[in-house]
Amino acid sequence: MVDCRDRGLQYGDGIFETMRVRSGQVRLLDLHLDRLYLGCRKLRIEAPARPNLRRELVHLAGHRQDGILKLIITRGSGPRGYRPSGNERCRRIAFLQSLPGGGSDDEAPVRLRVCTTALGTNPALAGLKTLNRLESVLARAEWSDARIWDGLMRDADGNVVSGSMSNLFLRRGATLTTPLLDRCGVAGVMRRWILQHAGDLGLRTAERRVRWSDLKSAEEVFMCNAVAGIRPVRSIAQAGGSTLKFGRRETADRLRSLLDAQ
Amino acid sequence: MVDCRDRGLQYGDGIFETMRVRSGQVRLLDLHLDRLYLGCRKLRIEAPARPNLRRELVHLAGHRQDGILKLIITRGSGPRGYRPSGNERCRRIAFLQSLPGGGSDDEAPVRLRVCTTALGTNPALAGLKTLNRLESVLARAEWSDARIWDGLMRDADGNVVSGSMSNLFLRRGATLTTPLLDRCGVAGVMRRWILQHAGDLGLRTAERRVRWSDLKSAEEVFMCNAVAGIRPVRSIAQAGGSTLKFGRRETADRLRSLLDAQ
Repeated sequence: MVDCRDRGLQYGDGIFETMRVRSGQVRLLDLHLDRLYLGCRKLRIEAPARPNLRRELVHLAGHRQDGILKLIITRGSGPRGYRPSGNERCRRIAFLQSLPGGGSDDEAPVRLRVCTTALGTNPALAGLKTLNRLESVLARAEWSDARIWDGLMRDADGNVVSGSMSNLFLRRGATLTTPLLDRCGVAGVMRRWILQHAGDLGLRTAERRVRWSDLKSAEEVFMCNAVAGIRPVRSIAQAGGSTLKFGRRETADRLRSLLDAQ
Repeated sequence: MVDCRDRGLQYGDGIFETMRVRSGQVRLLDLHLDRLYLGCRKLRIEAPARPNLRRELVHLAGHRQDGILKLIITRGSGPRGYRPSGNERCRRIAFLQSLPGGGSDDEAPVRLRVCTTALGTNPALAGLKTLNRLESVLARAEWSDARIWDGLMRDADGNVVSGSMSNLFLRRGATLTTPLLDRCGVAGVMRRWILQHAGDLGLRTAERRVRWSDLKSAEEVFMCNAVAGIRPVRSIAQAGGSTLKFGRRETADRLRSLLDAQ
């Protein structure tokens, strides 16, 4: 239970991380903490000292061999009004949950669709995983077909930005491209890890605007997030339109092997 | 206290209304309910039956002669993930609070500033008072000078959209203009009331894009929200720039008289 006056509930004034626990340890914990503290700095939320929070998360993860650890950090409770009083004390709320679908990591290629709900442009919040997630909720409510793993979201200019709960990569030759997230979208921790490690596999990386035509000319497409890892894409269906199909998955597989070996 | 799994906290998946209670009654109650039910429809939140909710609010307001009644409606608690399961039961949370500043309605002209934080563009959510309010929080955190009543926010294209907690009107001749809220901003209940009643005072109304040059050429500027009512604007300060000054307030005064007479 949480205080009704918590600004996380009142205004979505906070951030969160959804982390994968494997063998009692948080995968990519330090990348999660990097993003979390970046978010707190940008929102000017006074987060707990990093070593202490890290210790808490390590301790919590130890309670479960395999699962999901979600951490919400809000600015805390305060008086009415948008303006933080400065006297709020940040609140942290942790959830330890089992993995959906039995717990084993699925590696099969996934189907995507293209969402109608657009991502709004907001440079001040772009990249952060804030508690303002209504766009993802609306996008994810667009389909109920369980065979569709995620939906691609575009910005108002039609650029492809991300999935509703995952980030997008395309490969053409030896170049991995992922959409630039300077105006909207969540800069996922797994995306970060891939950008850091693609060079180990001899791949160049680029963050830039991605158009539908880039998807058409891609040799391989994959999605990623901290919980599901890296998933090859087999198809992307447009509403009432054509379906793009992809047959290759070697980059996704090599990256996943590298990730699992860590 | 509220369940930590409430989607209002997890994703800002809900809406709210902030209502003015006068003499134990909610001012503009039916306009508040109109917007609330529009929001629930757009977010596909199954709200309680309107007559029942109306009765509850009337009953609550009766406990306080003068004050603020805030109502939050969330989609309710649900399993992890953006997708509503469809089994959520909407949650309503009400707060009855005293008015800031002693309780009398202040009618003095106010000072504004121009905010750096821009409003993101999102047609699916534009106009609604959702729980995703981080932009307003960031904008309101830009100043601490208590003499500044509100800050004007612009969209990414530089159009003036609203205050961080209020709506904007400008008058030139017999025409009242207020920014069009089809891409961002909250369509305030007091703004709605003014658009409905300006004709009673012989004024035409227009909802359209507003540029800085429109403010410069305005004869009168005022702001409004459901709690503070209608406030004439005396000045708008640009960061490191010029300050626009306004001397007239007759339209704001006539509208407020009409409002008080209701």
